[in-house]
Amino acid sequence: MSSSNIILGHNQYGKAEVRVVKITRDTDRHEIEDLNVTSQLRGDFEAAHLEGDNAHVVATDTQKNTIYAFAREGVGSPEAFLLRLGEHFTSSFDWVTGGRWEAESYTWDRIQAHGSEHDHSFVRNGQEVRTAVLVRDGAATHLISGLKDLTVLKSTQSGFVGYPKDKYTTLPETTDRILATDVSARWRFKTGTDFSTLDFNKSYEDVKGLLLEGFTEKYSHALQQTLFDMGTKVLEAHSEIDEIKFSMPNKHHFLVDLSPFGLDNPNEVFFAADRPYGLIEATVQRDDATPADIAWSGIAGFC
Amino acid sequence: MSSSNIILGHNQYGKAEVRVVKITRDTDRHEIEDLNVTSQLRGDFEAAHLEGDNAHVVATDTQKNTIYAFAREGVGSPEAFLLRLGEHFTSSFDWVTGGRWEAESYTWDRIQAHGSEHDHSFVRNGQEVRTAVLVRDGAATHLISGLKDLTVLKSTQSGFVGYPKDKYTTLPETTDRILATDVSARWRFKTGTDFSTLDFNKSYEDVKGLLLEGFTEKYSHALQQTLFDMGTKVLEAHSEIDEIKFSMPNKHHFLVDLSPFGLDNPNEVFFAADRPYGLIEATVQRDDATPADIAWSGIAGFC
Amino acid sequence: MSSSNIILGHNQYGKAEVRVVKITRDTDRHEIEDLNVTSQLRGDFEAAHLEGDNAHVVATDTQKNTIYAFAREGVGSPEAFLLRLGEHFTSSFDWVTGGRWEAESYTWDRIQAHGSEHDHSFVRNGQEVRTAVLVRDGAATHLISGLKDLTVLKSTQSGFVGYPKDKYTTLPETTDRILATDVSARWRFKTGTDFSTLDFNKSYEDVKGLLLEGFTEKYSHALQQTLFDMGTKVLEAHSEIDEIKFSMPNKHHFLVDLSPFGLDNPNEVFFAADRPYGLIEATVQRDDATPADIAWSGIAGFC
Amino acid sequence: MSSSNIILGHNQYGKAEVRVVKITRDTDRHEIEDLNVTSQLRGDFEAAHLEGDNAHVVATDTQKNTIYAFAREGVGSPEAFLLRLGEHFTSSFDWVTGGRWEAESYTWDRIQAHGSEHDHSFVRNGQEVRTAVLVRDGAATHLISGLKDLTVLKSTQSGFVGYPKDKYTTLPETTDRILATDVSARWRFKTGTDFSTLDFNKSYEDVKGLLLEGFTEKYSHALQQTLFDMGTKVLEAHSEIDEIKFSMPNKHHFLVDLSPFGLDNPNEVFFAADRPYGLIEATVQRDDATPADIAWSGIAGFC
Repeated sequence: MSSSNIILGHNQYGKAEVRVVKITRDTDRHEIEDLNVTSQLRGDFEAAHLEGDNAHVVATDTQKNTIYAFAREGVGSPEAFLLRLGEHFTSSFDWVTGGRWEAESYTWDRIQAHGSEHDHSFVRNGQEVRTAVLVRDGAATHLISGLKDLTVLKSTQSGFVGYPKDKYTTLPETTDRILATDVSARWRFKTGTDFSTLDFNKSYEDVKGLLLEGFTEKYSHALQQTLFDMGTKVLEAHSEIDEIKFSMPNKHHFLVDLSPFGLDNPNEVFFAADRPYGLIEATVQRDDATPADIAWSGIAGFC
Repeated sequence: MSSSNIILGHNQYGKAEVRVVKITRDTDRHEIEDLNVTSQLRGDFEAAHLEGDNAHVVATDTQKNTIYAFAREGVGSPEAFLLRLGEHFTSSFDWVTGGRWEAESYTWDRIQAHGSEHDHSFVRNGQEVRTAVLVRDGAATHLISGLKDLTVLKSTQSGFVGYPKDKYTTLPETTDRILATDVSARWRFKTGTDFSTLDFNKSYEDVKGLLLEGFTEKYSHALQQTLFDMGTKVLEAHSEIDEIKFSMPNKHHFLVDLSPFGLDNPNEVFFAADRPYGLIEATVQRDDATPADIAWSGIAGFC
Repeated sequence: MSSSNIILGHNQYGKAEVRVVKITRDTDRHEIEDLNVTSQLRGDFEAAHLEGDNAHVVATDTQKNTIYAFAREGVGSPEAFLLRLGEHFTSSFDWVTGGRWEAESYTWDRIQAHGSEHDHSFVRNGQEVRTAVLVRDGAATHLISGLKDLTVLKSTQSGFVGYPKDKYTTLPETTDRILATDVSARWRFKTGTDFSTLDFNKSYEDVKGLLLEGFTEKYSHALQQTLFDMGTKVLEAHSEIDEIKFSMPNKHHFLVDLSPFGLDNPNEVFFAADRPYGLIEATVQRDDATPADIAWSGIAGFC
Repeated sequence: MSSSNIILGHNQYGKAEVRVVKITRDTDRHEIEDLNVTSQLRGDFEAAHLEGDNAHVVATDTQKNTIYAFAREGVGSPEAFLLRLGEHFTSSFDWVTGGRWEAESYTWDRIQAHGSEHDHSFVRNGQEVRTAVLVRDGAATHLISGLKDLTVLKSTQSGFVGYPKDKYTTLPETTDRILATDVSARWRFKTGTDFSTLDFNKSYEDVKGLLLEGFTEKYSHALQQTLFDMGTKVLEAHSEIDEIKFSMPNKHHFLVDLSPFGLDNPNEVFFAADRPYGLIEATVQRDDATPADIAWSGIAGFC
């Protein structure tokens, strides 16, 4: 049909969603780290695809075993753990020239019992999921921290006016509405950063705090504006970060019309809708950021 | 085929999962209540089923509208809100002799910004979902509070030994393991309680605290024992509660065998498994509790 | 606080969601059976709860092993498999006086390749999930077959009129609407049936066909009526079944108002809403059915 | 901290998951089309982000209305519908220079009743979800069809041997195992194709058939090889397609060790595991395919 040849393009493979829980029990006061790790290798895997020759295929089961073995020496932070994994796989096998390693991590709080924090009993904190992605591509190393499912809501100080009206526009303007979203944010560290100098856990907590604070601060003329403000706060405070991407639904809370029942509704009773929802996605970045599209490939919902 | 006649048995109908968000904005410091409410009516609905005659069928849309209209006057607590709904429907329509009303409610914390709690910006607290069920059946009123998805873990002080061994038993005994579960608990108030005297929100917070504390306290010989201790603490402290039911998975955390890699694993690295899981369900109750099986019908996973 | 004693009430425990795939490969034309099995035991388990004495606690791991071992001899049907498991556990341990066994099963079709059904390649058929529940309680044995997630829709021949109007009613009447639901149905075999005489797979296929056919047949004045018609067809054709319970959402499809855009909408363009939804639950039964409330306990959404 | 300026990078916004059901009722034999559509615009939206000026922000509500209005004239195919939407938005607003439009579509089969297909009653076919993505970027138009959640399984004719062994390798080789996956595939039409000449529904059905057939054909030495064979079949038969990307889990089915129970297990009884799973992602393409990375941005799990 076509005179072209059929070839193998981009590819990667590995083990996904390795659930590892690490308890550190050097003292009676235990520490818990809880991760969901995915490891995928890139390199010369053509023979496996074209000929079924697995001589280069480091088994996904081996990748899983490696994750558990490395956890024995501790996790530290999701980012540090992925960096160790990436270094291991690219240095251990000649034909592995890169890869993608990803982690979700889950936070546990100590249970309060009899007025104090318990030594070895924990309750899962469901406020958000922390994320990390490492992409190694030959000499380049890209590291992206992030979070998702951080659900926030402002009950006032938000409006939406001044938008264009066409024949399909029926939305009335409003200067007081609920603004609610699930924050998904991913921030990429500057290319060439010496990662050994960074305290990823401290950096994470600080960025999360800035995102929350940024959400509260100004009157929101649109979720786009609030998003940009949130990102700006992070970049202003964190010189080690070059860009931050957001994917945030506008979770509509519709004011219920209570007038048929003889009641007013001065922004008090709302219907929280599921679908459809607005979807706002944008990057806030430094003007001198090194382009790194390859780092973002395959992350859902980030343009 | 059979000489029997075919008849209508138990039935109920209504509107499920009405998402209502109530903002109280009497002052600049707003309050938020966030519920998912289901209303189902019971009574004489035979004509609808057998003849398609809807003269008795209070529209599910009407039930939804009623929920929103009632929210205009405030929610207060999930339990109090359901009690108002139940009273309304059973008193407004002759043929509605009972029903089932259910709510989930979601907790929001104030966002910390610049060192203090914000007046109108909130972040969803995902620690657990609070639940309430009201069943009215003629003169009887049953009220059940509860919670679900409260995920807890002990990294030591748990074991499992002394169980019977048969030809299908391969599990080794252990005196030190991780114990983890998602607490689902439902507690029923004493039949005949004057509900107007109860502070449901305070009661809820206290029960939740006792459940968490009970989870931490003793060495666990089996999740069954821990469950019973948790329930006992609640009943001892809350004379208004007659019984508490639990449905709790035993979320297995398997110690990873690192010996093939030349590593020991002194209870430090675990694989958190998804399925299958243990499932422990039991009731802790007073010996003089009024039986109320009807109250529990239709709640998944509670025997 | 109370003079009552705190005791253990109803309880059961076991292993949930044991995923077992059985390949029958006696010939080159393989057969596949794919189940998700839960086993829970009831009996004398007081010592485990009150004293942490596990002498009676048949390990949930042992229950899992038993499921796999029994699958070696074949599955046959979910119902037959559960009956074998129930017989085993109640006859093997003196203190196990009953239990609850449940299965979901998933259907696979053979892949069509080069014009014929392949011998050992299958594609999952996602039309519905088949369910089965066995409850043994002393001498009594209750068996319930069922299905869930069977999504059906009628694009006409459905309306809703003649319902009562109160101050909260705003819904307009309609004589032509979309009727859509996810059928969840559970049917209980006559108490005392000799189960060895039943062909459960054939019975299941026939009941499913009748439910689908019943959904199509008449003009629907309400989902309640359609539900009753569907159940009646099953009971008329299957004398071995004593009752059938339904839990069916009324999945609203709202006609979109296109008039602001200068367009009519003669029942052509609909918004398929998520929440809230109507929820219709009812039992269709023989008037001489043996009551068996215990069989239904713990099945979500069935009153 | 940094001398750089903070700027707006890539961005897009719109309305997500607009659920539209279109009934075509020109005759008594109705047709149903069921889609979940997302519309996102790209162009000059800087003022909204930086200044809260919404003069360019075509409301997401307006985008939703447009989808419903366009459905009044029919859907035809997901691809054709997205092309119409993309043309409308980019031609209607000067500052809209591109965008991304996406659809899932759901298949309904006619219910068989009394031996024939019913005119207006349908049952949802859950075999797979069909997908389509249109990306317009200035003059370029990229169109990607696809499917997901097509679950397939081979009970034999699959093995995994010859892989490298390192210190973390414990997996034994096997020449007979179950191979199971959820096929997610996306195929991109040749850049510059005249889309008006394509019958997207026919093309879709044919590609799906080839994917299923390709899965069955050869002994699988690795999922990578099977993936490549599936893609090759599609490209060989469809000259209008330039590349096809796959993201496929290797859904492990572990042979259960029944020897402790005195039983053999000749590849008959398997445990279907959830997590972790293998994850194989690759592109099969023509060697002269026009690169189009921008088309794939934001699609989860495709490298």
